Amino acid sequence: MRLAVIPGDGIGPEVVAEALKVLGEVVPAAEITRYDLGAARWHATGELLPESVLGELRQHDAILLGAVGDPSVPSGILERGLLLRLRFELDHHVNLRPARLYPGVRSPISDPPEIDMVVVREGTEGLYAGNGGLLRKDTPHEIATEVSINTSFGVERVVRDAFARAANRPRKHLTLVHKTNVLTHAGSLWSRVVEEVSLQHPDVTVAYQHVDAATIHLVTDPARYDVIVTDNLFGDILTDLAAAVTGGIGLAASGNLDVTRRNPSMFEPVHGSAPDIAGQGIADPTAAVLSVALMLDHLGEHEPARRIEASVAFDLATRDHASPGATYAVGDRLAALVSSNVRTG
Amino acid sequence: MRLAVIPGDGIGPEVVAEALKVLGEVVPAAEITRYDLGAARWHATGELLPESVLGELRQHDAILLGAVGDPSVPSGILERGLLLRLRFELDHHVNLRPARLYPGVRSPISDPPEIDMVVVREGTEGLYAGNGGLLRKDTPHEIATEVSINTSFGVERVVRDAFARAANRPRKHLTLVHKTNVLTHAGSLWSRVVEEVSLQHPDVTVAYQHVDAATIHLVTDPARYDVIVTDNLFGDILTDLAAAVTGGIGLAASGNLDVTRRNPSMFEPVHGSAPDIAGQGIADPTAAVLSVALMLDHLGEHEPARRIEASVAFDLATRDHASPGATYAVGDRLAALVSSNVRTG
Ligand SMILES: CC(C)[C@H](C(=O)O)[C@@H](O)C(=O)O
Ligand SMILES: CC(C)[C@H](C(=O)O)[C@@H](O)C(=O)O
Repeated sequence: MRLAVIPGDGIGPEVVAEALKVLGEVVPAAEITRYDLGAARWHATGELLPESVLGELRQHDAILLGAVGDPSVPSGILERGLLLRLRFELDHHVNLRPARLYPGVRSPISDPPEIDMVVVREGTEGLYAGNGGLLRKDTPHEIATEVSINTSFGVERVVRDAFARAANRPRKHLTLVHKTNVLTHAGSLWSRVVEEVSLQHPDVTVAYQHVDAATIHLVTDPARYDVIVTDNLFGDILTDLAAAVTGGIGLAASGNLDVTRRNPSMFEPVHGSAPDIAGQGIADPTAAVLSVALMLDHLGEHEPARRIEASVAFDLATRDHASPGATYAVGDRLAALVSSNVRTG
Repeated sequence: MRLAVIPGDGIGPEVVAEALKVLGEVVPAAEITRYDLGAARWHATGELLPESVLGELRQHDAILLGAVGDPSVPSGILERGLLLRLRFELDHHVNLRPARLYPGVRSPISDPPEIDMVVVREGTEGLYAGNGGLLRKDTPHEIATEVSINTSFGVERVVRDAFARAANRPRKHLTLVHKTNVLTHAGSLWSRVVEEVSLQHPDVTVAYQHVDAATIHLVTDPARYDVIVTDNLFGDILTDLAAAVTGGIGLAASGNLDVTRRNPSMFEPVHGSAPDIAGQGIADPTAAVLSVALMLDHLGEHEPARRIEASVAFDLATRDHASPGATYAVGDRLAALVSSNVRTG
């Protein structure tokens, strides 16, 4: 297994170190190459993602990314020039974001039900296409546009993936989230594609919700969701909310997948670089560790993936949530659990 | 006071009847004209908003709208052709949506703090401009676009309004919510306008949050918000979530304001037509009643507005939330409270 690691900014390197510690227990032979992309490199050289580095990244089986973003860099530079560039260049069209409320974890909602859902977020188009511009900047007649681009090709492949995932889950339920009553063009495309693909999955029940209503139900009735499929921006919003409801982005893992496997997929915790707590060694590495499990699943290493997940579940059920421990201590605990091959439930 | 009333679809007519009952207690001389716009008229005549009706609506001091939308009408027809058309034709650039957790009301989040915020949502541009289209429909090469249009003119007027509102509130705090790290063009415009207008309001503290982070904080730390200013789509999403957190869209009021007063402003509950419970007489009319209070405030009738709000607050603090009563019964209670001039707090 050839793994590229981009520790990145802020708490990125801290949580990645623990994720690799845990990975070492299940795949000791993993061959790891580090890439120092992020704020520091940009400051030092002006580089975000040199072509040569991109070429090297393509030679790996997968990429593990910590976090990207720093207050010293103007908003958008690292996001667009590095993180989104990776997602787009490597055709990460399925942005996979499970949200599960683990036993022992406190949800901000009272009397939370069992929550075990996965958001399949489109990752390569929509409003993230970077299409738009400014006209008459700094005049009273300035116009700023942002264009959401949705293609039959792009929507169909992510919808197919979402149906396939739903078909493999016990509840076999898929919810399309969009805003078809306002975004009538894109909404029409998404709705038609979901309808068409559903014909090939008579076993999967299908629901539709407007994005505004979905935010309500994520808070008042999250158990209704099994698989959500949605566009890039709605997926961004819904997955942060789903993470909050299931105990916080400190626990939320994600995979940026090229399901065709032509390019390496990239795995990252949903949380950002959290500059406010960076360098203190207190960031929770759990989301990064769970991202490693997603990575192993994607690479077909299901047994070690289940071991990592079971270890996280055990740790979350037994840890003192008021003081879960330093970053390295959580990593040590999870590594020990993984190596002792803990089984829960 | 010349008031146009559009009861609309589903529970719209039911809640509007109670809102008018309450209004009758404080402004018995209000002159009311009803307009039968909505699903039924569309089915009968194909009309959504005839020019002549639009012309008549313009002759009123304000418009009270129940709800628009019916499952028998394809998604988007009534929304774009009637509701959004009204908002755009009447230049309702400030979509005002308070979210307050009233004593006695149960929030889905545990141990909720005091929540008293208002979202100032832009109402006439962004992704709601209806700009976009389909190319190569029903082919494998189909492309659907949606264009978010943001103008200096449009952003500045809503940002000014939001600052003025913040300056008049005890906490004097304003949060811009956007996604500047991805929507860099529109984000740049919004950020620059907020920065410029803030120079004229040194008393107002300003914060910025990405929309995804804002959904997290609305659930984990809603007390941080005082005034939120945001674009049309983010405002749509955030106000449904804020309503959920403060007890549900059954309580959420809104005003679509032309703050220049060139056109009548329009007031409506945030909830929709709720076809699932329509006709049963069980819809909660509270949001419609609170929308009347927003209307009176807009028309300068602050004393009756406060009376209505105090009555709602009293009723919410004392009602049996498990069975708040039939629609008409809630209306009767609120009307009686208003006429007895109840004062709380
Ligand atoms: C940092 C940002 C560009 C990114 C996104 O919007 O996709 C983040 O919010 C995420 O969800 O991974
Ligand atoms: C019905 C729909 C067009 C509308 C909107 O998106 O603005 C509604 O959700 C609202 O918030 O008033």
